[in-house]
Amino acid sequence: MIIVQKFGGSSVANVKKIKNVARRIVSTKRKGYDVVVVVSAPGDTTDDLIELAGKISKIPSRREMDMLLSTGEQMSVALLAMAIHELGEDAVSMTGYQVGIITDDVHGSAKIEDIHSGRMLEELKKGKVVIVAGFQGKTPNHEITTLGRGGSDLTAVALASVLKAKVCEIYTDVDGVYTTDPRICKDARKLDEISYEEMMEMAALGAKVMQSRSVEVGKKYDIPILVRNSMNHTQGTLITKENKKMEKVLVSGVTINEDEAKVTLLKVPDKPGIAAKVFQKIAEKNINVDMIIQNKSTTNYNDISFTVMRSDLKRSLPVVREAANLVKARGIQVDDKIAKVSIVGVGMKSHSGVAAKMFSALAEKGINIDMISTSEIKISCVVDGRRGKDAVKVLHKKFELGKKSK
Amino acid sequence: MIIVQKFGGSSVANVKKIKNVARRIVSTKRKGYDVVVVVSAPGDTTDDLIELAGKISKIPSRREMDMLLSTGEQMSVALLAMAIHELGEDAVSMTGYQVGIITDDVHGSAKIEDIHSGRMLEELKKGKVVIVAGFQGKTPNHEITTLGRGGSDLTAVALASVLKAKVCEIYTDVDGVYTTDPRICKDARKLDEISYEEMMEMAALGAKVMQSRSVEVGKKYDIPILVRNSMNHTQGTLITKENKKMEKVLVSGVTINEDEAKVTLLKVPDKPGIAAKVFQKIAEKNINVDMIIQNKSTTNYNDISFTVMRSDLKRSLPVVREAANLVKARGIQVDDKIAKVSIVGVGMKSHSGVAAKMFSALAEKGINIDMISTSEIKISCVVDGRRGKDAVKVLHKKFELGKKSK
Repeated sequence: MIIVQKFGGSSVANVKKIKNVARRIVSTKRKGYDVVVVVSAPGDTTDDLIELAGKISKIPSRREMDMLLSTGEQMSVALLAMAIHELGEDAVSMTGYQVGIITDDVHGSAKIEDIHSGRMLEELKKGKVVIVAGFQGKTPNHEITTLGRGGSDLTAVALASVLKAKVCEIYTDVDGVYTTDPRICKDARKLDEISYEEMMEMAALGAKVMQSRSVEVGKKYDIPILVRNSMNHTQGTLITKENKKMEKVLVSGVTINEDEAKVTLLKVPDKPGIAAKVFQKIAEKNINVDMIIQNKSTTNYNDISFTVMRSDLKRSLPVVREAANLVKARGIQVDDKIAKVSIVGVGMKSHSGVAAKMFSALAEKGINIDMISTSEIKISCVVDGRRGKDAVKVLHKKFELGKKSK
Repeated sequence: MIIVQKFGGSSVANVKKIKNVARRIVSTKRKGYDVVVVVSAPGDTTDDLIELAGKISKIPSRREMDMLLSTGEQMSVALLAMAIHELGEDAVSMTGYQVGIITDDVHGSAKIEDIHSGRMLEELKKGKVVIVAGFQGKTPNHEITTLGRGGSDLTAVALASVLKAKVCEIYTDVDGVYTTDPRICKDARKLDEISYEEMMEMAALGAKVMQSRSVEVGKKYDIPILVRNSMNHTQGTLITKENKKMEKVLVSGVTINEDEAKVTLLKVPDKPGIAAKVFQKIAEKNINVDMIIQNKSTTNYNDISFTVMRSDLKRSLPVVREAANLVKARGIQVDDKIAKVSIVGVGMKSHSGVAAKMFSALAEKGINIDMISTSEIKISCVVDGRRGKDAVKVLHKKFELGKKSK
């Protein structure tokens, strides 16, 4: 039975931590499992290399960036293999290249197209722990690629799927997935279990523990993902298929995203195709739009509002102005002090009144709702940025997430 | 016409130096040459990584060391390619893996078995500068190997030979090859030209500017090697085939090696096969022996002396004792305060009296000779370690190496 374990950069930031990780791997191995390990670059290595490249070139070639950045993980795997040898187990490190993690040629954010499991299975058969460099792959033309931020998680889940692993363990510096950010709500509770869908929504809505893309792969190939703390032995959170127990719970978590800004086009003439024109212009600049709200009023005019990452706001304004002219809007309004607060839960599918409960909870605390957006398993509200954390607290309490009720 | 340029770690130790190297490459390219560049790891990277590995494992796996160390050169090539892009020329970095530098599987000191020139020639044809990671290769089984210290020089000369380059330029932090160490003799003179054979002897005898192994490859494939300073534009020293001009010069250089120790087996019975037994024992421990002297006296006993690297002395003593017992020697004597001083020159082949001139020069200064060893183009004398530098000075003067006589 194969277990895939992934350790992030902070888990291998120094010699002591590398030895600690090695002990954990060896203990899993000695329980009788075949272990495949995925590692990120040590500590701040990737950021340091990006900074160094920035001193040489303002816009470094993406191919050369991949060549540069992939060295970080290569260091980690070699050092970790040595640490495992010291503990008396056999181990072999492998680059993405050597495994045969085949990707497309979009340097910096490549997509995995195929993974050769042959060499890994061969080494496992010899009794070795296989240690794979995360975040990297190669094109069919032997070019080195990287998968983008969070890419090591993706490597781990993808390896787990081709190896038909029992579980993919993601080791990080927190105990698991929480009902909300523990820095905001002291009584935030670690979840024992969460569905792929909920996790994907939570990741997309601001929870930083795992990236949505990796969870999606886990869901597609039905690989249970266990998020755990590399520094202790608590059980962590299992991301898995939706089950009956989960459905009984109304809401699993509350998230907050304070990194967005709201843009409104005022008094846009109400004609077909207007929204398409606006968002096409914005898409051409590769700017991601998150929420979009359009209110048809009884007049012949609409207000169109949307949110973008605050970091994209500056470069999106010229194109928004262009779009506003194009559709003859009367003006533009920008609000960069918003917070998007969301509740997530598969239980919403079978329970009614969740939205009403959310809105009334916010109203009771005098928190005004600026925008609303819903999906099957989440409801998001944009509120005044100064009230964002209050909103999280009141929702966390209202839906009784702090209590050990689950 | 292809030129291969190799830059050592000190030439790419920081951003400023990388940019400097890039300018030099671009200027060669703009003279109309196809340029292939070989780079070492930046500054102290390799030493830092070795130290890091040492903290994890006392005897780290050689395979994993190669995995670890090969990252240094990979960083250099990526950064250098970016710096060349900034100057408006196209460049592409390649790992030893990507080039197809095929080696045997002796990790840590692999031998090059084959080099694929296809991808390099393809990129040169597209007008790109090709930047190759030095010091590294891969086995036919896709394992990463390194060529040992000085391996980047070897990569450069080997690439020059498969690419049939006009010249292989080795950039370093000195102006070229000197008649002797300028730190010992102030009037040491840079040589304009030296033969492969002389350079090999000088490298083997202590000159640090190039390793013997690389010069040997240059000789085999008749690739002129130009040793130059990366910080200025002086012409450097050309290592090339022996020619008439060289033969007129009696001695080209004086070297000193202060890193050896002398071991003597006292009063060994004079029987056939004794020396073989002794040195076989030592060879089994992978200890390199340099000079060997055996004096047959009129008695039935011999003294057998030899030198080893001082760093090998400690681990060689137990096996020497074992050998001494085996051959019934009366005792062992160790002297770790010796210096080996040598004169090198192809002119010796056609001139007599060079040895006598050397010995008398040393005698005039009261420097006692402990051991003597000769080859066709060199004479080495072991002297008291405290007189080593004096010996260099007197020989440098005696053979008029400081004067611009060549």
